[in-house]
Amino acid sequence: METTNNTGFRVESDLIGQREIPDSDLYGVQTLRGIENFEISKFHLNEYPLFIKGLAITKMGAARANYELGLLTKQQADAIEQACREIIDGKYHDQFPVDMIQGGAGTTTNMNANEVIANRALEIMGHKRGEYTYCSPNDHVNCSQSTNDAYPTAIHIGMYFSHLRYMEHFEKLIESFERKGKEFASILKIGRTQLEDAVPMTLGQTFSGFAAILRDEIKHLNEAANDFLTINMGATAIGTGICAEPGYAEKCVAALAEITGWDIKLSDNLVGATSDTSCLVGYASALKRVAVKVNKICNDLRLLASGPRCGLGEFNLPAMQPGSSIMPGKVNPVIPEVMNQICYKVIGNELCVTMAGEAAQMELNAMEPVMAQCDFESVDLMINGFDTLRTRCVDGITANADRCREEVRNSICIVTALNPVIGYKNSTKIAKEALETGKSVYDLVLEHGILTQKDLDTILAPENMIKPVKLDIKPLK
Amino acid sequence: METTNNTGFRVESDLIGQREIPDSDLYGVQTLRGIENFEISKFHLNEYPLFIKGLAITKMGAARANYELGLLTKQQADAIEQACREIIDGKYHDQFPVDMIQGGAGTTTNMNANEVIANRALEIMGHKRGEYTYCSPNDHVNCSQSTNDAYPTAIHIGMYFSHLRYMEHFEKLIESFERKGKEFASILKIGRTQLEDAVPMTLGQTFSGFAAILRDEIKHLNEAANDFLTINMGATAIGTGICAEPGYAEKCVAALAEITGWDIKLSDNLVGATSDTSCLVGYASALKRVAVKVNKICNDLRLLASGPRCGLGEFNLPAMQPGSSIMPGKVNPVIPEVMNQICYKVIGNELCVTMAGEAAQMELNAMEPVMAQCDFESVDLMINGFDTLRTRCVDGITANADRCREEVRNSICIVTALNPVIGYKNSTKIAKEALETGKSVYDLVLEHGILTQKDLDTILAPENMIKPVKLDIKPLK
Amino acid sequence: METTNNTGFRVESDLIGQREIPDSDLYGVQTLRGIENFEISKFHLNEYPLFIKGLAITKMGAARANYELGLLTKQQADAIEQACREIIDGKYHDQFPVDMIQGGAGTTTNMNANEVIANRALEIMGHKRGEYTYCSPNDHVNCSQSTNDAYPTAIHIGMYFSHLRYMEHFEKLIESFERKGKEFASILKIGRTQLEDAVPMTLGQTFSGFAAILRDEIKHLNEAANDFLTINMGATAIGTGICAEPGYAEKCVAALAEITGWDIKLSDNLVGATSDTSCLVGYASALKRVAVKVNKICNDLRLLASGPRCGLGEFNLPAMQPGSSIMPGKVNPVIPEVMNQICYKVIGNELCVTMAGEAAQMELNAMEPVMAQCDFESVDLMINGFDTLRTRCVDGITANADRCREEVRNSICIVTALNPVIGYKNSTKIAKEALETGKSVYDLVLEHGILTQKDLDTILAPENMIKPVKLDIKPLK
Amino acid sequence: METTNNTGFRVESDLIGQREIPDSDLYGVQTLRGIENFEISKFHLNEYPLFIKGLAITKMGAARANYELGLLTKQQADAIEQACREIIDGKYHDQFPVDMIQGGAGTTTNMNANEVIANRALEIMGHKRGEYTYCSPNDHVNCSQSTNDAYPTAIHIGMYFSHLRYMEHFEKLIESFERKGKEFASILKIGRTQLEDAVPMTLGQTFSGFAAILRDEIKHLNEAANDFLTINMGATAIGTGICAEPGYAEKCVAALAEITGWDIKLSDNLVGATSDTSCLVGYASALKRVAVKVNKICNDLRLLASGPRCGLGEFNLPAMQPGSSIMPGKVNPVIPEVMNQICYKVIGNELCVTMAGEAAQMELNAMEPVMAQCDFESVDLMINGFDTLRTRCVDGITANADRCREEVRNSICIVTALNPVIGYKNSTKIAKEALETGKSVYDLVLEHGILTQKDLDTILAPENMIKPVKLDIKPLK
Repeated sequence: METTNNTGFRVESDLIGQREIPDSDLYGVQTLRGIENFEISKFHLNEYPLFIKGLAITKMGAARANYELGLLTKQQADAIEQACREIIDGKYHDQFPVDMIQGGAGTTTNMNANEVIANRALEIMGHKRGEYTYCSPNDHVNCSQSTNDAYPTAIHIGMYFSHLRYMEHFEKLIESFERKGKEFASILKIGRTQLEDAVPMTLGQTFSGFAAILRDEIKHLNEAANDFLTINMGATAIGTGICAEPGYAEKCVAALAEITGWDIKLSDNLVGATSDTSCLVGYASALKRVAVKVNKICNDLRLLASGPRCGLGEFNLPAMQPGSSIMPGKVNPVIPEVMNQICYKVIGNELCVTMAGEAAQMELNAMEPVMAQCDFESVDLMINGFDTLRTRCVDGITANADRCREEVRNSICIVTALNPVIGYKNSTKIAKEALETGKSVYDLVLEHGILTQKDLDTILAPENMIKPVKLDIKPLK
Repeated sequence: METTNNTGFRVESDLIGQREIPDSDLYGVQTLRGIENFEISKFHLNEYPLFIKGLAITKMGAARANYELGLLTKQQADAIEQACREIIDGKYHDQFPVDMIQGGAGTTTNMNANEVIANRALEIMGHKRGEYTYCSPNDHVNCSQSTNDAYPTAIHIGMYFSHLRYMEHFEKLIESFERKGKEFASILKIGRTQLEDAVPMTLGQTFSGFAAILRDEIKHLNEAANDFLTINMGATAIGTGICAEPGYAEKCVAALAEITGWDIKLSDNLVGATSDTSCLVGYASALKRVAVKVNKICNDLRLLASGPRCGLGEFNLPAMQPGSSIMPGKVNPVIPEVMNQICYKVIGNELCVTMAGEAAQMELNAMEPVMAQCDFESVDLMINGFDTLRTRCVDGITANADRCREEVRNSICIVTALNPVIGYKNSTKIAKEALETGKSVYDLVLEHGILTQKDLDTILAPENMIKPVKLDIKPLK
Repeated sequence: METTNNTGFRVESDLIGQREIPDSDLYGVQTLRGIENFEISKFHLNEYPLFIKGLAITKMGAARANYELGLLTKQQADAIEQACREIIDGKYHDQFPVDMIQGGAGTTTNMNANEVIANRALEIMGHKRGEYTYCSPNDHVNCSQSTNDAYPTAIHIGMYFSHLRYMEHFEKLIESFERKGKEFASILKIGRTQLEDAVPMTLGQTFSGFAAILRDEIKHLNEAANDFLTINMGATAIGTGICAEPGYAEKCVAALAEITGWDIKLSDNLVGATSDTSCLVGYASALKRVAVKVNKICNDLRLLASGPRCGLGEFNLPAMQPGSSIMPGKVNPVIPEVMNQICYKVIGNELCVTMAGEAAQMELNAMEPVMAQCDFESVDLMINGFDTLRTRCVDGITANADRCREEVRNSICIVTALNPVIGYKNSTKIAKEALETGKSVYDLVLEHGILTQKDLDTILAPENMIKPVKLDIKPLK
Repeated sequence: METTNNTGFRVESDLIGQREIPDSDLYGVQTLRGIENFEISKFHLNEYPLFIKGLAITKMGAARANYELGLLTKQQADAIEQACREIIDGKYHDQFPVDMIQGGAGTTTNMNANEVIANRALEIMGHKRGEYTYCSPNDHVNCSQSTNDAYPTAIHIGMYFSHLRYMEHFEKLIESFERKGKEFASILKIGRTQLEDAVPMTLGQTFSGFAAILRDEIKHLNEAANDFLTINMGATAIGTGICAEPGYAEKCVAALAEITGWDIKLSDNLVGATSDTSCLVGYASALKRVAVKVNKICNDLRLLASGPRCGLGEFNLPAMQPGSSIMPGKVNPVIPEVMNQICYKVIGNELCVTMAGEAAQMELNAMEPVMAQCDFESVDLMINGFDTLRTRCVDGITANADRCREEVRNSICIVTALNPVIGYKNSTKIAKEALETGKSVYDLVLEHGILTQKDLDTILAPENMIKPVKLDIKPLK
């Protein structure tokens, strides 16, 4: 049992020696070591409530399994479970002050959870903080566990919660694009390939196209997140299950499935799984894939809205703030710009996760903490970005329908619609003449007597240029 | 019709002007432009036979659909199909000399295929090369198509073939690891976390762990590759289907499904799909994920085999060549080393693909050629690496069983097995004393009268330390 | 003039409309817009005091130049200068609450500085906050400036301060390695290439090697940082200097050089410079280069200290915390591990900076804020890491001299030292026999009568194996 | 001595065993092992003539130093030198068939050079190939060397040659931009920030800005390349100089300086230097920095030339090929597009180099071969790209002066020029009214009686808007 005194401190000891811990703190000596050893970043565990939730759920699941196996008393198990539930409910988040980026493969984070839960359980059981004989961070809260299974499992659960949250915000952004797709369905505009005028389309197709490519990512995000539902509880230190009893792993997984309501599974090969962090790489890559698309979309938003007079100006982004400290009246696409920057950050984080993922050695990957930090950070950044982009930009976009129409009228590439009738070579000649003379394709076709005006009108009717059609028109010559 | 003369050249023309083409070449003026414009890299289309196959299949599928719609005569369709089949059979690969890295979003590659097929079809139909009235690269071979649907579709098909090839070689490597897992199943060794001695395991678990984490990737690779089966044929220039007739897209997809035997589908939103290259990003990321794991495995192979006398030396890699120009008798892990380097290259390629993927603008991504080049290159590199690693390294690994056993005997961390009986705190004391005195854990436990020798032997029996067990042993005090 | 009322708020207006600002805040309406528009990340301007310092210095320099040109009254110039000096002294940091990651190319940050300085200057001049007639954020504090020159200049100055701070902490780490290099100068150990036993060296050479490769980076870091001393003040909006008077740029640069004491220069081409953020890319790459080396060093520290019984165990890292929640007595290399993770983060940030750097368009790079954020973050992370690594690890490393010596005695590769006497081929035979028989090189040489024992002792004397020597020894046969 | 027979083969042996080598080949058994072990990539040593040159020069320098120290006979030294010179002159390049990506830290490449040189030297000396008693690959050509000093030195020399070649082609591209800067110096156009209309500039400023930011990179490229001039000859296996005599390193460096005419230096710390490949990382980063800028420039070229009718259309890129297989008359910016893709490839390669650079372990970095491959590849790609971009694009750009002028006339942001006279707030009101009413800034200023027409004309005179001016104009009210 750890000793306490009346000075507002209790004394705890570990392999390194003794330390005083303020009575007001639920965490203990090992957390204190971690706080002191890792003054590294702006990212602390207490800013990641879903990860703390994952830790508490993991410990709750283990406690249930340990109780079923007779390794915890009912009183211990109940107290641990209640302590975990309080943490899940958001209490004691301030008791998780450790840096997310830490050495030791997450031992500090795991012990932080073990110590907070143990001390809170002790209180619930009517003991004093630090009286670890009755409920010890290592022997009871961490019973049948190692950091090497509990920590990744907590990350998996925390990340899966984050994923669910992400999907809600992502869905809302997609829907915003879809609404604009419908709103602009009848506005004809020029499509462009390689930045050059191509053939007509509607502005609605632009926005529903954005929505569609984002919606495609839902499948990939879910596939990537699904990996988090495979866990290695029962692996203990290196996957061999030392210190765990037969049946523990299965009971623990079942308990976690019950608590979360998710289809949680045990990894097929616990030795392989224990050093493997590729689900964090995979999810980072899935986030990156979205970032790549969102970057493209934001680039398009900025480009298509450029102007107001010397750009493409097809639509207007809502003005959110004065655009310049020197250029009066300037309004800039600040919201897509900040989203772009988030995407770069997410792509940078993915590289960090990749490099850390590659650093696994033998039975463990000691670099998992920074992988978790990056994935949690990227999710948070993107959620903030999605909401900002949706509410401060996409929802308020208005179209410049006249300008869009004018583009199509002027363009040469509508000559493409003549291909099926007069062939690519002849169309090329018309296009070349239009470009050189400044004349319109329409006038040139009539001037050369290639088609009747009626047939030409049919071919160039907007509704015939924005979808596949069969026209059965023959050239005059 | 293009003119021909008797000087061994025919004259072809395009938007830019006229050019002489050697009669011996099946390709035409647009391919020639591409050859001249893009003298860039060491990667040429003719080195990527599966991509050429993809091009030929795409053109064959389009020809069938066009014939069904009455847009090609039977003679034209048959000739085009025969030409495509000859290309699939490996003829005329030398007629695809263009650089894989090219501007124009693949137009050069698409026209290369169109021209070769048109000229070969002309021959089959009894015409001369260049007599494009009878079968034109643009109006007939490229009928109802744009580069912007045909080129990505050909990449998809080519990449899917590459994926299938990849999986064969990957499977063989996994099986090689699995065989070693069985071969070494009874060799006890120390497991290590954070490079520090941890708890016992078998050498077989090491290798079956390698196999297991690789096998997990099959699912992810297949999911990523599955995206290639969704294509945008019928999108034509920008996804609106201009120049294509209603029903063409569906017929073309059906034809391609029939030719390949694969479950090919049409993209739900052709406008979105036409500028979207994220399947190439996704596949690159899937390859990267494998690379991250293979890197870890190769690092472990090198580390665990290090020595011969001052390293870990748990097993021996086959000696493939003298290891040093100066150190006689030195043998180095050259095969894992080359595999590592392949993995770095694959990870670098993934970044290239990511950046190019992000460069899509409005209705197209002009940077798709380098994305395709990278993905094809990465697959080829990894296949070569897998075969080299398997045949020149893994298959020939032999274990140093005595050394492995000796490690376990010496290690302190077997004290972990005592946790369930005497608790973490007491075990820590034993461990500390062992470290400081150099004594063995075994002796110290007996010396302190903590357990009977029989119980201690039971706890530390190898078979009890490498899997979960229930022992029901109580400490003496 | 902005109106104020007695409700504790003043009303300010901008292009978008009117807003109430608490009287207690020095910042104004444009900062408020930025706060609301960019709720993105955990990184806020007020956490980057050196950047705020850079902003204040930039504004002070501009004020001096504007005063000299008669564009500010003495009273205005003095008040602005005093306000800037107060900010430099650390006052009002809480008045810079905006997110570091923001759209608008830094306009929010620039206006935040302009508003805080203007309102503080107004107070100094005896006016009320918001009475911008007397000193306006735009017309006076931002006089002759645009965000597009003031913001990057402030980043440059802030980053140069950060660089100077970085170098101090970096130097201390290098010196720590140098001390260990001297401390371990006489401990003979085996060198390893490709993880295989190579030839002897001293442990001191290992550590002085670490120090040397880090010291090489000082030059590169300084070269990269030197770019920050070239600024584009006077460029105003796009580099053409609109709204600035002739001579302003030179006067402003001179003022900044005087304030900082640094050799600050004006960019040769202000149009090019204004969209160019490559100094941020270059500095990120310089930080990455260090990270690559520090990663290698930390990997070596972990590997060479691995054990305690089944690893290389050449030296001991100080024990900082219990290494495991399950394995009693385990001590892990947690400090090098956290440093590794910092390095991955720095490398990820470099990619973010690269991608953002590539996103410049025409006359500006709107993505500069995230580039600045990443560079400031990376510097901070590495400084924390350097101090942690030095004080909690390197300084406390102790050598296992016996073990190191034992390695050399056992190794085969000392046969290399015989090359100059008996040739590579003969040495190879000895090495092979040693490996196959387990005999020592020493015994085999004598057994085969290749050298006299005296000559052999000379060749294999430690002092002769760790540096170039000339021995003039001939083989017996 | 190796045996030869009359069957067209000679028999050579190494640590692994005996092999037959065709008499026609200069390379020997160790090269053969390398060929067989590393069938990896499309990159073979014989495609990198400057690297082969670097190898030959390295061996020549070592031979001179060895001769001076009496370790080679005059006959041997002369024969080796002649053999090296022949290789430098481009003979026997086919005798370097090994894959650039290889395990063994370059031993295969080093032995390839040693064997080719030894056998050619033997011929010169009047012996048969394979009679290694007279001149052995290891004992004579490789005398006083290890792969670990000779291989990186050869890379350094080869890369420095590549750098010099790169700079020539880079300079030509810069000059091309400079010429366009002058050609377009009088064409007024709108500048844009954040894609939005900003203030006027000249088209010449755009192009001279491109030139200027590229010219800035010369310094950084040279700084990065300068690292290649520091070498580690004399380090031998691990930096301790085992097998080398005192003075060898200095003599060798002096010889290499004499041969190349470059200021080659010996590394200060040979142990540190031998595992350090950061000059390859640094040069890759320098290439990346250029790539980032070239990407920006190519993006601008594509964007500013977009159209022909619905884009910005400020200038025209030369038409190089038909732009589309379906859209007649379409011309695309294919040359900037291919340059963009090269840049992505270079950025991907930089990541590969970074990861490989980080993989150094203890006394060596076994991953150096892929680093060299990437750097050589990136240089080659960029040289091809520079020439293509210059000759097929930049040199032929023509301006659309009328369109550029029209932009300025229409733009609202010229109101910025009024700031110094009427203040930011008043200017904002004008801008807002212009935007809402569609009226011109010019008309509104007069309409509101803010300035006399003469003063307004002065302020808005093109020559006054594209550089700093002092006008001394007061508003009417």
